[in-house]
Amino acid sequence: MTKQQTWTAALVVIGDEILSGRTQDRNIAQVATWLNQQGIRLAEVRVVPDEEGRISEAVNSLRASHDYLFTTGGIGPTHDDITVDSIAAAFGVPVIVHPEARRILEEYYRARGGTGELTEARLRMARVPEGAELIANPTSGAPGVRIGNVYILAGVPHIAASMLEALTGTLEGGRPIVSVTVGAYAAESEVADLLRETEAGHPGVAVGSYPFFRDGRYGANFVMRSEDGEAAQRCAEDLVRDLAVAGYEVVAGGI
Amino acid sequence: MTKQQTWTAALVVIGDEILSGRTQDRNIAQVATWLNQQGIRLAEVRVVPDEEGRISEAVNSLRASHDYLFTTGGIGPTHDDITVDSIAAAFGVPVIVHPEARRILEEYYRARGGTGELTEARLRMARVPEGAELIANPTSGAPGVRIGNVYILAGVPHIAASMLEALTGTLEGGRPIVSVTVGAYAAESEVADLLRETEAGHPGVAVGSYPFFRDGRYGANFVMRSEDGEAAQRCAEDLVRDLAVAGYEVVAGGI
Repeated sequence: MTKQQTWTAALVVIGDEILSGRTQDRNIAQVATWLNQQGIRLAEVRVVPDEEGRISEAVNSLRASHDYLFTTGGIGPTHDDITVDSIAAAFGVPVIVHPEARRILEEYYRARGGTGELTEARLRMARVPEGAELIANPTSGAPGVRIGNVYILAGVPHIAASMLEALTGTLEGGRPIVSVTVGAYAAESEVADLLRETEAGHPGVAVGSYPFFRDGRYGANFVMRSEDGEAAQRCAEDLVRDLAVAGYEVVAGGI
Repeated sequence: MTKQQTWTAALVVIGDEILSGRTQDRNIAQVATWLNQQGIRLAEVRVVPDEEGRISEAVNSLRASHDYLFTTGGIGPTHDDITVDSIAAAFGVPVIVHPEARRILEEYYRARGGTGELTEARLRMARVPEGAELIANPTSGAPGVRIGNVYILAGVPHIAASMLEALTGTLEGGRPIVSVTVGAYAAESEVADLLRETEAGHPGVAVGSYPFFRDGRYGANFVMRSEDGEAAQRCAEDLVRDLAVAGYEVVAGGI
C-alpha cells in the first residue's frame, strides 16, 4: 500500500457564550463528522472569546499548521460579531463590502417584505476580508466566507450545517476515516491488556475505549478507526472473537 | 470601585472521540459554568488528540498564560489513556504510583466484590506525575490529580462533575460573573444599533446577542455579563425599557 497523504483541519469556535457555559457547543461534533466524510481529519479545536487579538492569533497559528481552518461564530449583524474584522487583521488585508453578498442580502430582505434597503447592521453581514469568496447559505441569506484556506461559518448550528452542505465535495481530501464499533459488558480495566494487544496486532488501526455504566451494568464501546476500512473491520472481528472467548457479552455495532 | 483582579482559566479537552465527532463534548459547558461560580473566567479551550506531544504542548502553553488549567479525559485504565504521562512530560517529572490513590482503588475494587488486588490496568489509575496531589472522586474511585496549577479531571461528564464538586470553594477567585438575560421578538439586525449604544452606556458590562427563530418568529436573547451584578441589572433594565419603547415584545429573563 502506498502512503496516503493525511489531510488535516483545525477549528476555531468563536464566542463568549461558549466560554461562559451559557451555550452548549454543537459545532465541534458536526464539523468533525463532516470533515471525516470529506477525508479530512480534525486535528485541533480552540475556543476563543469575542476579542480581535485572540481570534487573529488563533487563526494565524492554526491556518499555518493545517491544510484547512474552519471558524464558527461571530458573523452576525451585532457589535459582538467581529470575526470578519479579526480574520482580515490576521491576513493583513482591509475589510470590504462584497458586491455579491450585498446583492444576496438585499434580495433576502426584499423577499421578507421590506424594501431590500440594507441598514448599517445588515450591511455588516456583507463585509469580507479583501480577496475573499462567499460560501452559500441556503438557510438565512447572510453568506459564509472563504479566504485562503480559512472557511468562516455561522455559529448557529443549523446555519453552519447548511454552509457545510454547500461545501460538500469541494475540498481536496484523502480517504474518509472508517470507524467500526464493538460493545461489550466488560469493565475497561479488565480488558485493557486485550485492547492493547488488539491494537498492536493491527497496524494502521487506532482502538479507542469508551466506558459506560448503564442499567446497573458496567460496559464499554470499543471503536476501531482507520483509513483502511477492511483493516478496521478485521480488527473488530478479532476483538469480538477474543472478548467472546474471554466470556463477555459482546454486541457488534456497539451498545 | 477598586480594580478587581480577574482570574482566568484554560481547559484542555483530551480525546480522539471528540475530534472524530463520535462524542458530543459536555465538559466545556460544565467546567465553564462551574468556573463562573468560583469567580474564575474560562478564557480559552483547546481540544487535542490522544497524542503525548500535542497534550504536553497545549498544557505547557496554557498553564503559563492562565491562573488555572483544567484538563478532561484520558485518565482511565486503557492504553489510550495517556494524560498523566503527557502532563508529567510537560512538567519534566517522572510518573509514580501515588500510595493514597493505590489504597483508594484497592478499597474500591474490594467493595465491588474482588480481592482488592490491582491488575496492571487498574494500577494505571493510581499513577500521577511526581509531586502531584489527588482530587477526590466520590463517584467511581479513581481520583483526579492536581500538579501545580493544573487540575486533571475525568472525561466522563458525571465523573468530572463530581470532581468539580469536590474542588468547589477551594480555588482562589474573584467575584463571580453575573449574567442577566433579556429576550425580545426582534430581528438582531434591527436592534444592533440599540445594543451597541446600550453596551457603550454601561462600562464594565458586556452585552451579547443570541438570535433564534422559533414558532415562525424571529427573536434574540440579550445577555448582560459583569462582575458587578448591579451594573448588569441596571443595563438590563435600560435595555428592556428601550426595546419596549421601540415597540418590541420583551421578556425579562429571556425567551
